[in-house]
Amino acid sequence: MKQLYHVLGAKQFERDELERLFDAAKDMEKVVAKGGDRRHEGRIMTTLFFEASTRTRLSFESAMHRMGGGVIGTENAAQFSSAIKGETLEDTIRIVSGYSDVIVMRHTEIGAAKRAAKVSPIPVINAGDGAGEHPTQALLDTYTIRKEFGKIDGLKIAMVGDLAYGRTVHSLSYMLANYQDVMIYYISPDNVRIPENVKKYMDEKGIRYVETNDLNSVAGSIDVLYQTRIQKERFPSVEEYEKASGQYIVDAELMSRMSKDAIVLHPLPRAGEITEEVDDDPRAAYFRQAVNGLYIRMALVDKCIVESRGN
Amino acid sequence: MKQLYHVLGAKQFERDELERLFDAAKDMEKVVAKGGDRRHEGRIMTTLFFEASTRTRLSFESAMHRMGGGVIGTENAAQFSSAIKGETLEDTIRIVSGYSDVIVMRHTEIGAAKRAAKVSPIPVINAGDGAGEHPTQALLDTYTIRKEFGKIDGLKIAMVGDLAYGRTVHSLSYMLANYQDVMIYYISPDNVRIPENVKKYMDEKGIRYVETNDLNSVAGSIDVLYQTRIQKERFPSVEEYEKASGQYIVDAELMSRMSKDAIVLHPLPRAGEITEEVDDDPRAAYFRQAVNGLYIRMALVDKCIVESRGN
Amino acid sequence: MKQLYHVLGAKQFERDELERLFDAAKDMEKVVAKGGDRRHEGRIMTTLFFEASTRTRLSFESAMHRMGGGVIGTENAAQFSSAIKGETLEDTIRIVSGYSDVIVMRHTEIGAAKRAAKVSPIPVINAGDGAGEHPTQALLDTYTIRKEFGKIDGLKIAMVGDLAYGRTVHSLSYMLANYQDVMIYYISPDNVRIPENVKKYMDEKGIRYVETNDLNSVAGSIDVLYQTRIQKERFPSVEEYEKASGQYIVDAELMSRMSKDAIVLHPLPRAGEITEEVDDDPRAAYFRQAVNGLYIRMALVDKCIVESRGN
Repeated sequence: MKQLYHVLGAKQFERDELERLFDAAKDMEKVVAKGGDRRHEGRIMTTLFFEASTRTRLSFESAMHRMGGGVIGTENAAQFSSAIKGETLEDTIRIVSGYSDVIVMRHTEIGAAKRAAKVSPIPVINAGDGAGEHPTQALLDTYTIRKEFGKIDGLKIAMVGDLAYGRTVHSLSYMLANYQDVMIYYISPDNVRIPENVKKYMDEKGIRYVETNDLNSVAGSIDVLYQTRIQKERFPSVEEYEKASGQYIVDAELMSRMSKDAIVLHPLPRAGEITEEVDDDPRAAYFRQAVNGLYIRMALVDKCIVESRGN
Repeated sequence: MKQLYHVLGAKQFERDELERLFDAAKDMEKVVAKGGDRRHEGRIMTTLFFEASTRTRLSFESAMHRMGGGVIGTENAAQFSSAIKGETLEDTIRIVSGYSDVIVMRHTEIGAAKRAAKVSPIPVINAGDGAGEHPTQALLDTYTIRKEFGKIDGLKIAMVGDLAYGRTVHSLSYMLANYQDVMIYYISPDNVRIPENVKKYMDEKGIRYVETNDLNSVAGSIDVLYQTRIQKERFPSVEEYEKASGQYIVDAELMSRMSKDAIVLHPLPRAGEITEEVDDDPRAAYFRQAVNGLYIRMALVDKCIVESRGN
Repeated sequence: MKQLYHVLGAKQFERDELERLFDAAKDMEKVVAKGGDRRHEGRIMTTLFFEASTRTRLSFESAMHRMGGGVIGTENAAQFSSAIKGETLEDTIRIVSGYSDVIVMRHTEIGAAKRAAKVSPIPVINAGDGAGEHPTQALLDTYTIRKEFGKIDGLKIAMVGDLAYGRTVHSLSYMLANYQDVMIYYISPDNVRIPENVKKYMDEKGIRYVETNDLNSVAGSIDVLYQTRIQKERFPSVEEYEKASGQYIVDAELMSRMSKDAIVLHPLPRAGEITEEVDDDPRAAYFRQAVNGLYIRMALVDKCIVESRGN
């Protein structure tokens, strides 16, 4: 039986592996700049999206194409005719895995990627499983921070917005826990605070963090402001939503309080929580962050294929 | 005018052609094991699915990629904007055929593939036309039997479940009619028995068959158990459905009655009619069967492109 | 900053550029006849369709594959998860542009392609923007006329049907305005006449045109009959629709009034406004026209990639 390399959750990555992965991603930047290569010509990626996530899917498909590989897939869970007919996820994976060399999977249920990996004879990459994890987003976030600052140790990082339901901040927290002397500010309205299990994990890893609902007072002392969306549905009324979300908008005024060397990140898409006037500020790193997703995914797909071959 | 090779229905295949095709499929297993080849680099397949069938579509797309070709297509009939505007199937084919080298088509209407082939300047492969045929499924079924037993002549094959509406058992029957001394057991509830026209065809070909609704008494004497789904909608009430379907479940108990050398097949997806406890039995051949679909489709696509070139 | 070549509207094309483009399209016919080439191996096209247009999408994807490139994309605006979350078109483009080398975009809003081009670091091709323009259709129409007659100067061209809402006749008019001594007949029911702004443009360019609702009396004196669909929704009642559309059907009777050297074009799909009996007439050029779309799109995509590289 082959030993497979899957990408299932943020906690599977330790510092050494992260560093090797980031080096590989940096190499991939050069590969893309030269117009891609053909290292995986003849290999096939299956993108199995049981829930729409066009951007993530396109990013993975581009990653495979940039390395010469082909892609098959479906962008619509509701259309997956076998699922409609009552097939288990396990059966779907058993069959679809016969058609390709790596599966990139998005699902609505927590743990779906792990269930898939258990029966799959080829590597599985978790591209988001419900309220669970989105490890490749956390990897590109972490990679962006390292690239922008040349390091992660010692940085002060604020995560802002919906910290209860936003899975990217959970995965990012787990990943940052690998580094030394990081300080995290969890900044959110009271009803969407960072969950206890995340805090417990940070405690176990000895990571310092502060919870607050006051962005303004923290803005001047942080290196990274990681902004996220706040969803209307989490609040009892539109008024309360608007009151809450209004306190966490990153605009020119807020930028003026921040350090000259700080950066602003966002997993995107945004919907008003970073105003467009910020886009031209060199500290606005969220579009640079987005393109980093391509390099990280190339490095991950490459690792999946190479490490699962001929073991 | 070029002479085109289309794949439209099971009856077009005679024994000689089947044998050559199965040899080609066997070669394709080796091609895949070596990571594919580039024999159809620059060629394009169009997958035109007027009805969702994700697995069949992915299987064909994988087949084309494994031979170096490209794929364009649509997975959703309802979205085919030209169809919405009232375009005939013939016009759609006349135009889309200008974009590629082979069309793989799924449609909701019986005879749609034949209509397409009539006006297409490139080969058409029928990937299912309503209640009509699904010849590539029948080919992979037949290929699996030959591969598992080294022969088909003389085998005893039971088809179980909804034999009235399940088009795969019709197509499979037509294909098995090419062989010597096969014996077929049609095992179903009374309201979904094998249709008269299939029996008439088998009579004409001199194939022996038995109709029964008793799976248990037959299980011990067959070589192949071809299980299919029974759909709730065919029964007057849920009670009658459950009573009927309950009699045709393949589980460990039923397996214990079967020969040590028998195999169990299923076109998949399954929804309870083969229990998961059977999966680890070496006689459970349905996942091996599924991957055979890739090899058969590679052989068919290859034949379509090669035989339609430069005649 | 690179200088990018975008394809946004018909008016951007002047006669010299059209001639060079048509020469390039002619070369592409030879490339396709030889089975394509690999000139853009490793390059990626993104097809971003916020509205279904399967035929146009497949045609562009085929064009890219025929030149060795890869394609990523989405065929369904409603599924574009970022758009659902309230993302602006500009943000979508900023991010998706990081994944590929050229964007082909279909949108429901006039001016969407121009907005995309304003923020995109890679070329954008407008594949239709609402009631706005569809320049690649106009290019393939113009190319077809030049190919069928060896020239465009001096031709008499009738546009028939819904001239108010049919964007293809607007774009085609702008393009024909580059030529000498063309004479245009705008033939339509009174309620869907050619808009004033198109007539004004033709006046400025010194192009002669006539408006009429009588197809029969004009049929004998034209070189090109460009037929389009008339949509039921434009009329106050089904009776008025049927009365109007019935007068503009191209059938054998009408063909008998036309010159032996005339041709009939249609952007397709058709829905009865050209009867099938006309298909076998050598003057029925609409299927030849459709395949010309592939060559024109290959030439355009090639130009976009080549001219945007390394400037």
